[in-house]
Amino acid sequence: MPTTFPQRKIITLLTDFGSIYPSQMKGVILSRLSDVALVDIAHDIPAQNIRAGAFALMTTVRYFPKGTIHLAVVDPGVGTKRRGIAVQSGGHVFVGPDNGLLIPAARSLGVPKVRMISQKFEASFTFHGRDIFAPMAATLAEGESFENIGPRVDPVELDFGKPHHSDKGIESRVIFVDHFGNLILNLAEVPEGDLKLKDRHLKRVRTYAEAKGIEPLITIGSHGFAEIAVNQGSAADVFGLAPGDLIVLERANCSE
Amino acid sequence: MPTTFPQRKIITLLTDFGSIYPSQMKGVILSRLSDVALVDIAHDIPAQNIRAGAFALMTTVRYFPKGTIHLAVVDPGVGTKRRGIAVQSGGHVFVGPDNGLLIPAARSLGVPKVRMISQKFEASFTFHGRDIFAPMAATLAEGESFENIGPRVDPVELDFGKPHHSDKGIESRVIFVDHFGNLILNLAEVPEGDLKLKDRHLKRVRTYAEAKGIEPLITIGSHGFAEIAVNQGSAADVFGLAPGDLIVLERANCSE
Amino acid sequence: MPTTFPQRKIITLLTDFGSIYPSQMKGVILSRLSDVALVDIAHDIPAQNIRAGAFALMTTVRYFPKGTIHLAVVDPGVGTKRRGIAVQSGGHVFVGPDNGLLIPAARSLGVPKVRMISQKFEASFTFHGRDIFAPMAATLAEGESFENIGPRVDPVELDFGKPHHSDKGIESRVIFVDHFGNLILNLAEVPEGDLKLKDRHLKRVRTYAEAKGIEPLITIGSHGFAEIAVNQGSAADVFGLAPGDLIVLERANCSE
Repeated sequence: MPTTFPQRKIITLLTDFGSIYPSQMKGVILSRLSDVALVDIAHDIPAQNIRAGAFALMTTVRYFPKGTIHLAVVDPGVGTKRRGIAVQSGGHVFVGPDNGLLIPAARSLGVPKVRMISQKFEASFTFHGRDIFAPMAATLAEGESFENIGPRVDPVELDFGKPHHSDKGIESRVIFVDHFGNLILNLAEVPEGDLKLKDRHLKRVRTYAEAKGIEPLITIGSHGFAEIAVNQGSAADVFGLAPGDLIVLERANCSE
Repeated sequence: MPTTFPQRKIITLLTDFGSIYPSQMKGVILSRLSDVALVDIAHDIPAQNIRAGAFALMTTVRYFPKGTIHLAVVDPGVGTKRRGIAVQSGGHVFVGPDNGLLIPAARSLGVPKVRMISQKFEASFTFHGRDIFAPMAATLAEGESFENIGPRVDPVELDFGKPHHSDKGIESRVIFVDHFGNLILNLAEVPEGDLKLKDRHLKRVRTYAEAKGIEPLITIGSHGFAEIAVNQGSAADVFGLAPGDLIVLERANCSE
Repeated sequence: MPTTFPQRKIITLLTDFGSIYPSQMKGVILSRLSDVALVDIAHDIPAQNIRAGAFALMTTVRYFPKGTIHLAVVDPGVGTKRRGIAVQSGGHVFVGPDNGLLIPAARSLGVPKVRMISQKFEASFTFHGRDIFAPMAATLAEGESFENIGPRVDPVELDFGKPHHSDKGIESRVIFVDHFGNLILNLAEVPEGDLKLKDRHLKRVRTYAEAKGIEPLITIGSHGFAEIAVNQGSAADVFGLAPGDLIVLERANCSE
């Protein structure tokens, strides 16, 4: 895990905005701070899906050096009384809405300190990402003290739930579907031996290439969570599953 | 609106090229000028849709600082006699085809000065974005005088039309559909009170969160234009509308 | 073709990863090297399609200056014994899996020198792009000697095949389908006169605008390969063709 503190500031961006709108956030940042590395994490988070955005952020921030500022906006409550927050954790800073989006990532790096954004920015009713969070991130990158952002607050929490072990097997939830259609579960350990999902066999592997042809497989992905994949295919399509769905992983009978 | 003049040059890119081709334009720029911030506005403009590209550019450039160069290429006439132009307006510079694409953005920042690109570059017949406009943008970023580009010309104009107020209601045109399926209209003001579209009620709101569930709404978007949206859904899908379509907004009867 | 050697290092990225994962590679690079220009070539290469990735890389690298490092990962064999390699050619460096992906691009710039990556990095079983190739690219950008990477090896080769001229016409293969649905063929020269594909006339043009309406056309694209396109439409959809498909181009009868 990187520990250097680069001289050039890094601001990452994660949104559900698609194109165009992220560039407006970048314009706002570059108007205040020209020598910054802007890195897109993703702008194709499923619309208004806070949990999917939180997962993507949590699995990514550990690869960035201390000092990085993460600007994340999946914000169904924009224009309501939901607060804006900045979070400090493990030497990183997070800026975004107070709806849980930032919390799993911040907790993955350390013990978060949270401030409400009480500085005033001229803001539209529909786009705080550009009008409040982007200038706040730029201001922090310019060296603004974290204490000046606003008062300490307790943030809205969010987690991915826990798997439940029962007679039927492991009840787990799909928390993310990636670009390949791989299903990522809220499950950090997979028991030895093969498993079944919806009456189909899941081969327990360490690497995709261990599965033959289009055989479904289960592995621990590089993000540290269990992942169901279909080589050269989409597990989301094969199993008809989407983020949020509950599944039951059954033990496969060895005689099969 | 930003007024600083950053030391590091910024070049934005907007095209309908998808992936790969924009990186070739960036390679050409970075071959001439290594210390530049390259910012993608969008590369998923609907193919050859000049009006959609012009709208995206117009709503975005105001967030960039003076001195920014905007390289925009939606270019159905590439390889014909359509001219290439550079446009100066409000301290920004635009480079691209003379087909109207740059004009609404340039007019939104000031009174445009337009020059035809008469400098010679070695060009393919099919990709002026890479072979002419990218090196032209890099040359301008390196400090080339705007007057040296070529002679003054009157550019091809483009606007988004005006809404028409009639007995039936407000006749307006869809000029853009964004990533969320929101319909953006050529309408800068929405009358008080709710409206109807295709016999469905549109709630007049200031912010998406004021609408309940999947209720269709109309608001003035952060770009300053009227926008029809469906919370947690796609208005484009719900109403079956696409860029260019004419619609009639009727006043909703209060007794409904 | 650019010949300058920029002071600021450039690293390009090409993968089939979609979003999120490329940003993790960038985080790893920026943790080691903050002043670098990171340029995305494409992250939407069809999943595990080495040939499509190789084509995209080959047609793009020539637009970047000497000294550029190209980090490319389309890697169905990750976690198996397939080697990782670095390739030096024409003043550029390539880093990625030894599965042919890098070879056409490297050959397009000169005579490749190939080293196996034997330096040790802490690696997951499923994501060498982030865990091995990204730190290797950053290490090279920091000035690591190419000779220190590991021993010389003969790489896995890949080419796009040759067209076959027969009585029926020219038998050629679709090697890539671009964002517009244009079909790119393994054919560098197109004979004079019009052609037919699947009984439909292909107008031989120098530029798309020479074709009328939705008339199918064939031209030499800016990448130097024959390209079948349909103005304002998708040739891939019109002809029902995908990467890898074999086609026969017949001479059109002049009396038609």
